[in-house]
Amino acid sequence: MTTTRRQMIQYAGVTGGVLAGISSAPAAADPAATSPAAFLGLFAKRQTVRKYKPDPVPEEHLQQILDAARRGPTCMNQQPWKFLVVRDKAKISAMRTATLASLAKRFEKNAADNKQMKAQELESRRAKSVRMIDGYFSAPVYVVVLVDSESSCSGYALKHDGPIAAAYLMLAARAFGYGTAYLTDGIPDQITREVLAIPSRYQRICITPVGVPDGWPEPVFKRKLEEMVAYETLHGHPPNQPVPYNP
Amino acid sequence: MTTTRRQMIQYAGVTGGVLAGISSAPAAADPAATSPAAFLGLFAKRQTVRKYKPDPVPEEHLQQILDAARRGPTCMNQQPWKFLVVRDKAKISAMRTATLASLAKRFEKNAADNKQMKAQELESRRAKSVRMIDGYFSAPVYVVVLVDSESSCSGYALKHDGPIAAAYLMLAARAFGYGTAYLTDGIPDQITREVLAIPSRYQRICITPVGVPDGWPEPVFKRKLEEMVAYETLHGHPPNQPVPYNP
Repeated sequence: MTTTRRQMIQYAGVTGGVLAGISSAPAAADPAATSPAAFLGLFAKRQTVRKYKPDPVPEEHLQQILDAARRGPTCMNQQPWKFLVVRDKAKISAMRTATLASLAKRFEKNAADNKQMKAQELESRRAKSVRMIDGYFSAPVYVVVLVDSESSCSGYALKHDGPIAAAYLMLAARAFGYGTAYLTDGIPDQITREVLAIPSRYQRICITPVGVPDGWPEPVFKRKLEEMVAYETLHGHPPNQPVPYNP
Repeated sequence: MTTTRRQMIQYAGVTGGVLAGISSAPAAADPAATSPAAFLGLFAKRQTVRKYKPDPVPEEHLQQILDAARRGPTCMNQQPWKFLVVRDKAKISAMRTATLASLAKRFEKNAADNKQMKAQELESRRAKSVRMIDGYFSAPVYVVVLVDSESSCSGYALKHDGPIAAAYLMLAARAFGYGTAYLTDGIPDQITREVLAIPSRYQRICITPVGVPDGWPEPVFKRKLEEMVAYETLHGHPPNQPVPYNP
C-alpha cells in the first residue's frame, strides 16, 4: 500500500464530504452538540415496522442511509461490511414464497407436537404469522447486512461491527421517515442465502425492509430505564423480569 | 402479569415522554424526517476517542444517553440490557492497573516469541500501547454494556441486542458532544468482570468511556461506499481489501 493516509481519506471522499464539519473545538461548541434533544427523539421513534406502502425509496436516500451505516466503530478499522440491496420484485417474491413455505412446515410440526392445541387456536396463530410475513414483504427495497468471514477481525465483525452497522442503517432510515425491521428468523438466513445466491464467505447479520410505513405502529412496552441501570456494582441489583411478547 | 399493555406503557413513562411525538402521519410529514441531513452528520462525527478531559458528565446527560441506548430493536422485546455505570476513581484506577499488567505480560510473551524484533521497536510499541491505555482511562465515567444470559432470547441478546444498544449509546453521547470508545480487548472482559465483580449471569458486550474528548481525533480512512454496496447479487462484486491499521 503506497497510498498515504491523507490520500486514502481524500480518495474516500471523506474530507470533502460529510466529515468536513468535524471540528476539534471543545464539546460545548460542537455543532452536533447544539440540539441533542432532536437526536434523542430519533432513537425513541425508531420502531419495528411490519407493513409498508409501495411508495419507492429513492436511490439518493438509500445512498445516504448506507453512508450512515458504515460509520460505526469497526474492529481495527476493517469495515468488513457488504450491503446487498434488493429491489427486484421476482427475488422479493421468491423470498416471500420460501418464507411462507418454511412457516407452513413449522406449523405442520407444531400441529404434530401439540395435539392438545385446538385446531382453531393453531389456525389463528398461523394466519397471524402469514399476515406478518406478508407485511415484511410489502416494502419496495430490502437491505441484507453482511460481514466478511475472511476479514482480519471476522469474529468481531460478526459479533460487533455487523449489528452496529445495521443499527446505524435503521436509525438513518428513520431520519428520512422510513420504517425498517431487524429481521433474523423473520426471514430465515438460509432463504436469503439461497434466493439471493449469497457466497459462503459472507455471513448475514440481518435483513431489513426499507419503506414508508403503512402507519406507524403503536408504541410497545418499554421497561423503566432504572431497571436496567446500575451504579458501581450489579450486586443487589434485581434481574430484568421477562417481558410478555405479542407483536 | 395482570397489568394491561397500555398500563405497562404508561408505567414506563413512554406515552407522556419522548415517544409522545410519534405520529402516524405519512413519512413526508413526520417531524423526524424534516432534517435528515442533521442526523446523518451525527453518524459521521462519531469517532473512537482515545483521550479525555477530566470534565464531568452530568448525570442528567448520562440518563438521556442511556435512555437512547435502550431504544434499539430487541429480540421479542426482551430488553435484556444492564448498563453498569462506573465513576468510582478507585475502581477506574484498579481497572487501569490490571489492564497495564495484562499488557506487560503480553509484551513479555511477544519479546520471547519475537527474539528477532529489535528491543527498541518492541519498546516503542509497548510505550504506544501504554499511552493508549492511559488515554482510555482518562474519562470521568464508564459504561459497561451487558446482556442477561438468562433472558429468553439470550443468544440474540449477545449477538444483536447488546451491540445495537452500545451503538445507540455512543451515538447519543456524540449528540451531547461526548466521545466514546467501543472497547473489547482494549479493556479485557476478565478485568471488568473481576474489578467490578460482575455476576456470571451477565455477559459483557463492551465497555466505553464517556467524556469530553481531549481534542477530536483526525478522521480515519474510510472505504468508498460503493466498495461495500452490491445490487441484487454479490456475484462478481469484489471482496473488501484489508485496511492497514495504525490507531
